[in-house]
Amino acid sequence: MIAIDEKTITDVALAQMAGTRDPRLKEIMACLVKHLHAFAREIDLTPEEWIDGIKFLTAVGQTCTPYRQEFILLSDTLGLSSLINSLHDRRALENGTKTSLLGPFYRQDSPQRKLGESIAANPGPAEICIHGRVVDTAGKGIPNASVQIWQTDDEGVYDLQRNDPSVMDLRGTYHADAEGRYNLRTVRPLGYMIPMDGPVGDMIRAQGRHGYRPAHIHFLIGAPGYRELVTALYLRKDDHIDSDTVFGVTDSLVTETTKNDPASPFPNLPSISFDFQLAAAKAEDATGRVGADPSQITKKTVQSSH
Amino acid sequence: MIAIDEKTITDVALAQMAGTRDPRLKEIMACLVKHLHAFAREIDLTPEEWIDGIKFLTAVGQTCTPYRQEFILLSDTLGLSSLINSLHDRRALENGTKTSLLGPFYRQDSPQRKLGESIAANPGPAEICIHGRVVDTAGKGIPNASVQIWQTDDEGVYDLQRNDPSVMDLRGTYHADAEGRYNLRTVRPLGYMIPMDGPVGDMIRAQGRHGYRPAHIHFLIGAPGYRELVTALYLRKDDHIDSDTVFGVTDSLVTETTKNDPASPFPNLPSISFDFQLAAAKAEDATGRVGADPSQITKKTVQSSH
Repeated sequence: MIAIDEKTITDVALAQMAGTRDPRLKEIMACLVKHLHAFAREIDLTPEEWIDGIKFLTAVGQTCTPYRQEFILLSDTLGLSSLINSLHDRRALENGTKTSLLGPFYRQDSPQRKLGESIAANPGPAEICIHGRVVDTAGKGIPNASVQIWQTDDEGVYDLQRNDPSVMDLRGTYHADAEGRYNLRTVRPLGYMIPMDGPVGDMIRAQGRHGYRPAHIHFLIGAPGYRELVTALYLRKDDHIDSDTVFGVTDSLVTETTKNDPASPFPNLPSISFDFQLAAAKAEDATGRVGADPSQITKKTVQSSH
Repeated sequence: MIAIDEKTITDVALAQMAGTRDPRLKEIMACLVKHLHAFAREIDLTPEEWIDGIKFLTAVGQTCTPYRQEFILLSDTLGLSSLINSLHDRRALENGTKTSLLGPFYRQDSPQRKLGESIAANPGPAEICIHGRVVDTAGKGIPNASVQIWQTDDEGVYDLQRNDPSVMDLRGTYHADAEGRYNLRTVRPLGYMIPMDGPVGDMIRAQGRHGYRPAHIHFLIGAPGYRELVTALYLRKDDHIDSDTVFGVTDSLVTETTKNDPASPFPNLPSISFDFQLAAAKAEDATGRVGADPSQITKKTVQSSH
């Protein structure tokens, strides 16, 4: 019979988990328990603080719906999602364009479009052009690479946040030409505040944070034999470019439109020129994507809890 | 513009949280982020593993109901609740009886009973006696100390788990006599399996754990000027006494009935003799209780998430 105290409990818990069949699950849970206990010991967590944490995590889980994933938002706002992306990039065989957050507004059934077409139903005066190449790490164009794009409109709102979320706008899937070149038209997006009406919003306010993401354009780039790239381009002139609430911005993904760009297929439009560089695929990359359709996550989750 | 990578992200996240107004919240969240990031870095967590974790935590939150607190169960089964209790004991001014888990079956409105009465509506052949004293750390009796007790029946089932959870059984609140002596009758409880039909049950199975708690009797002991004591007595002959799934058992709380105990007020019954030792109160102890009525937690939680 062992005496359980703050020194022995971690080893006792690890011993009880030692029979875990899956070796990776075993090492993940052992690492989690060690760090979770180290956190509680270092901060000398009290019973009242512990129950506040239980209540907070319960509220985060209960805020999730088929159209909202509050636990991903928590991970994003604690910098964990950004760290997971960085670790994913570091494991690549080669250095390509950096990964950024997929975010909660990705949709799998984005409409197919021809090069040069616009993803905006009503572009108006905010229309811009984005052009460039999808290349390998030697700078060689990747023919026919798939380029998925999605973003907010010029008021900072995604189609999924409009009155009828079944209507698609500001999304599209293109295919690069034989030299890996792509070009498309869209509108200049606006930054926006993350959902602030749930427990994560309460946390953000308690931490004195503004809750904004700077204006950005999401991309999912793929081609056979290459690592799928989930990334985003961030607009330098946004007020929150240095303080993204979810830590997606990194220097190499910051860009800005230029006027009268002679390389742009639409030189009369403000244009962004950006080349996406794909690393070679590794065997384990098959499903290497951070984030997913929140409705799918929540549906699976609800099923597994019954 | 900073480059965010696996080395810089932690400092960037901490900097953004530096404006937290409440100083304790600020240090708790900073400590949490450091350990959460250290966990992800050390285990090199992949995007697929991260999304599995998101799904698991979402399912834990969505399994919580007014009668079930799955996040407390998760904390219990990871050894965190036991650690929080140990840290609480270590902060005491004096060494008293060790804290153990409150568990999810505590009810605040337990019936008042006279010394010697039984908490069991139908004790049957499993009837036992529990007797002893409530004392201070010098061994001096504490007059009129409050002794709340609750437990399973001899089949391992709490009243709250029966068909009509509004019927109270196997609960009572006693008051010690002028010398701090108490005695009561009950039945010998049986151990039981934690709820295994939710995500925590899935985890326990994946870890090859049996999911049982050894037979135990809960106590909540209080008196003005002393630290409230939440604890439990564990029965030595239980098969799972060395492998409690929630790590509540510690050597000093393990006991067993004896026959023909001359000190027992009911010497014809198998009797447990146990003295509870209360430490002096500290100013911060006012609400120092691990766990709570799960229905209250969940109600507050749901309210705060809307």
